This record gives sequence, C-alpha cells and structure tokens, in this order.
Amino acid sequence: MNHRHFGIAGSAVKLPARAVASSELDERIGTPPGHVEATFGIRRRHWASAQETSSAMAAAAATDALAAAGWRADTLDVIVGACGVMEQPIPGTAPLVQRRLGLGASGIRAYDVNATCLSFLLALEHVLDGFALGRWRRALVFTADIASAALDFEHHESSVIFGDGATAFALEADGPHRCLALRFETFGEGADLCRLDAGGTRLRPHEDLPGFLAASHFRMHGPGVFKATSRRYPNFMRNLLHEAGVRPEALTTVVPHQASAPALEHLKRSLPHGHDRTIDIFADYGNQIATSLPHALHVARSRGLMRPGEHMLMIGTSAGISLGGTVLQC
Amino acid sequence: MNHRHFGIAGSAVKLPARAVASSELDERIGTPPGHVEATFGIRRRHWASAQETSSAMAAAAATDALAAAGWRADTLDVIVGACGVMEQPIPGTAPLVQRRLGLGASGIRAYDVNATCLSFLLALEHVLDGFALGRWRRALVFTADIASAALDFEHHESSVIFGDGATAFALEADGPHRCLALRFETFGEGADLCRLDAGGTRLRPHEDLPGFLAASHFRMHGPGVFKATSRRYPNFMRNLLHEAGVRPEALTTVVPHQASAPALEHLKRSLPHGHDRTIDIFADYGNQIATSLPHALHVARSRGLMRPGEHMLMIGTSAGISLGGTVLQC
Repeated sequence: MNHRHFGIAGSAVKLPARAVASSELDERIGTPPGHVEATFGIRRRHWASAQETSSAMAAAAATDALAAAGWRADTLDVIVGACGVMEQPIPGTAPLVQRRLGLGASGIRAYDVNATCLSFLLALEHVLDGFALGRWRRALVFTADIASAALDFEHHESSVIFGDGATAFALEADGPHRCLALRFETFGEGADLCRLDAGGTRLRPHEDLPGFLAASHFRMHGPGVFKATSRRYPNFMRNLLHEAGVRPEALTTVVPHQASAPALEHLKRSLPHGHDRTIDIFADYGNQIATSLPHALHVARSRGLMRPGEHMLMIGTSAGISLGGTVLQC
Repeated sequence: MNHRHFGIAGSAVKLPARAVASSELDERIGTPPGHVEATFGIRRRHWASAQETSSAMAAAAATDALAAAGWRADTLDVIVGACGVMEQPIPGTAPLVQRRLGLGASGIRAYDVNATCLSFLLALEHVLDGFALGRWRRALVFTADIASAALDFEHHESSVIFGDGATAFALEADGPHRCLALRFETFGEGADLCRLDAGGTRLRPHEDLPGFLAASHFRMHGPGVFKATSRRYPNFMRNLLHEAGVRPEALTTVVPHQASAPALEHLKRSLPHGHDRTIDIFADYGNQIATSLPHALHVARSRGLMRPGEHMLMIGTSAGISLGGTVLQC
C-alpha cells in the first residue's frame, strides 16, 4: 500500500543516567586501555539501574514526546510497545507504560509487537495501517531495551557494543510524511545467530537451574549475522527502492539500525554519499536493540533532516534473521 | 473499518501427548479426590514435555492447517506468532516456526504480536488489515503456550486450571467471512492482577537469583480479575455489538477465551441462549492462554457452526487487563 500519509507530532529519547566509557569496560574485561574503542568503534553506552526499568524509561520518553506534540495523554487512540525484549513476560510492556502515563482506567488499547531490533518498523507499519483504515488518528509507539541485563563479557563482540535506552513517538494521521514502501523479510535458518534462550516457555529454572542460567546471556555470532544479512542486502535494497520508485541517489537521509560499526560502514559504502547521509550514533550509544532505529530517527528529526519532499530510508536487520526497511517521503 | 472479507482455508490444534487428569492434581496438591474437578470445573488438561516446545507444537499445528487448506507452505505471504509467552526472548517464536516449516531461506515475513490471552485477536486484526490494504493474500497465524512451565501449586486457582497447546489458522483474503467490528480495550491499572515477573529485562538472575526464582511463577488474583473485567463487560459488549450493527439474539455462536468456569458461566448468562450457543471446552483443556480463543474457534468450525450469513462473537479478556472481541458474519 503506497502513499500513506502520517505525521510525527513529537518524539523523544530517554537514556539511563549512567554512561559507561569504553575505558571502564577495558578494565572489566582485561583488555588494554583503548582496546574496546579501537576494536569496536564505540566510546560509551548507557546502562540502566534497577530503577530505570523498560516501562519507566519508555513512560519518561512518552511524556516528553506527548509534551512535544502538545497532546494530552488521554487523547491517544492506541499505545504500541515495540521492545526487543519485554519488561516481564506477563503482561506486556504496553499496559505497564499505559499505567505509568496515568491512563490505567482509560481503556486505550495497549499491546506489543515483536521483531527484536526491527520492532519499531513493525509498529510503524501497524500504526500506518490503522491510519489508512480510519481506525485511529493518534498513536503512541515506544521502544525500550535493557541489553545490559543479559550480557556475557566472556564474549566481547556480543557484550561491549550494547547499550540501553528508550524512545517514544507521537504519530498522527494525515501529516506531511508518506510511506512509499515498506519491506520485511525473515530467514529463520539464521534463528540461532542471535539468541537469548532463557526467559520464555522452553527453559524452566525450577527444573534445570544450571541449564537455565547458562542460557540466560545474549549470544551473537557476529560474522554469521554479517554473512546472512550482507548477501541478502543488495537484493532487498533493490526491491525496496523499486517498490518506492526512488533511486538510491535520491535518498537524502539514511536512518539505520545501529547494529555495529562494521555494519554501518558496509551500509554507508553501498549508498551514494552514504558517509554524509547516514545517521551514525553508534559510537555514543552502541546497539540499543529495538531503540536504535527510532533513536536514529529522532536524531534525524532533531537535526532538521526531514525536509519536505526529500526521501528518507530507514533500514536494519534483526534477530530472526530479518531484514526490514521503509522509504519515506518527508 | 467494517465489512472486511476473509476466509479460513484451514485450521488445526496441536495438543501435548500427556493429558493430566484432575485426580492426579488432587494427589499433587493434597486435596481430596474430586476436589479440583468439583471446585474448578475442569476434568483434565494437557501438559507439554520438554520436547513439545512452543515452536514444535505450533509447527505441527501449522502443518495440519496448511494441509487442510491445500496450501504449500512456501505460498504464504506472512507468518504471525500470537503466543501469550514466547518460546525464548530472542528471536521471536515466528522465525522459529518458519524454520521448522522448511521456510528458513524463504524470506517470508515472520514476527510476533502480544496481548497475552488476546494475542490471536490482535493477530487476526493485523492480518485483516493486510488483506484490506492489499499487502498479502495468504497468512498463517499460530498460537502456542506452555502454561505448565510456570505454575505454582501453592496457589490452586492460578495453577490447576491451566493447560498447554497450540493452534494454527491458514487465512486468506476475499473469503466468505466478514469482520463487522473489532474492539480492544486496555486498563493498565489491573496490570498486577495477572503477572509473570521473571523472564524479561527487569529481573536479573545473575544479580538476584532468589528474587528471580521467587518471581518465576505465574500469579493471578482471580477475584480481582473477575471484578476488573465484569464491571466493564456490559459497556464493552454494548459498544461492540452497536459497532457491528448486530443484536445479541442474532449471535448464533459465541467463541470465548476459556478463562475459567465462572467466567464462562458469567458470559453465557449475559447472552440470549448463551448456554446453548457458547463454545465451552474448558473442562477438557483448561485455560490455554493465547491458544484458548483460536482453539474454541477451531472447534466451532469443526462442528459446522460457521454457517453462511450467521453471526459469531469472539470475545475474551487478557492480562493487562484487556477486553477484546470481534463480531464476524460467517
């Protein structure tokens, strides 16, 4: 479905108070000073305290996004949670955020969607569907992730690059932006490349505690992910741009998931003027799971890069493995 | 958005092999023989073994649903997971099911939506949106839940009534059914009434193991849930039927979430001929979380109760607390 209009009335990012410098991690993992920054291209990342829960950060971001929009919270028609991992299995994170916004008796529909790092893209599509079908006019989409809750520092590449944080977007029907195309492709053969096994229905801590604990850290096979996504990327991009009717050189701003420094470099090289046009906030925030993509979008907005008529690409990969992207006319 | 057409080309249920009689639970929890059945209105429920994972059961149900539809798996346009709790936090359950169906290299989009016990309703709405907007024509929606992974038998009312299982539906655009209305309301003030705290970003087993384990059982405050939902139910039902343009007496089949025996009794009493027209499979399967609602729908189909032109109500409640329902013209 092309040419779907919408507006971003407000957006916000909420970071945990504590910024962790890469030098601190060198000390923690026993590498020489400067090693983490030089190897992984990351200076710092934020890590949440026990009080800075997913729903607390998301509600803070939502409050700021609603203030920026000038909307009262009770004028929302829907609240969509788009976290990589939920705050707790039951209930979803969206009802928790709804309650924190003072909307606990409102009846405003609140639920979650999940495509790990691409959850925001999925939520955006869901909200645009509702706009197109006249179901709602004001939507709140939030993301929140706390990667630091499940890192294993024995594996540097799947620990030191991750950061925490939340975002919120106040979206409205009939704004200036148009979604020209949106693609989402999943390749389940790569499901083991990024995984967090413990925390669902499969592993039971009361029956096998050592097994549960051993599986309660995030695992990522970086080269495998790179191989699985990079070989599919050219075709994916070609189809996405073709569907949008937009040439690569017409993309004035590229908003990617902040997967890793090499992944961002690969993306930039693949696009005309990619190094100038790509939002790259990885060095300061790391990979924030589902928060990275909307965080980069918020930065693009804040820098005045959503100029009317220009074309923006949002693109990323996620555990699954999935590739996802959209082309917006700003 | 009214008058959206769709078809159910095939559906299936997959139950774990092991059926657990209520007499077995009397022994386990130390109550006299017959107590569990008499008190909770449940004779048996199925519980999954370690091999019967969420994705394994869902893939088995999906294989049967696709066979019933006469569809090759690779003709699907989208796979939507609608589990109450995912198999593991990363990646989602949908990519795992996609892989089990031999579609791991297909690129068919696969992701999850979550509204606990109402996840199927949310997935149905999402799929119908895609039909209405021309995005896809063949969709697979599956549910799978393993409640038995997190039961605390110290609390009878939130343990003995739960069962495991999976369902799958092969849905197509332009079939005979019409969705006349769909409502979803969330009241986050009741978020603590049904909860499973451990398994997300908030509680960290490596930092506080006793706290984590203590929170790794499902908790439900039955009377609180009943109060929170029953006082909102009349208004919710009135609005849903008004939106659908259907009188209560015109509902020939009622397909409810199988929350509990008292909840089903309350529903039946509220509707004309409710005791005759309501699908009640609670005594044999218990509350199967997100699987209950589509399981009851599959039973209604199998009994030939989706007669052309007749009106069907699907309705339920979920952790959140949410109320959700839809009116279909069959």
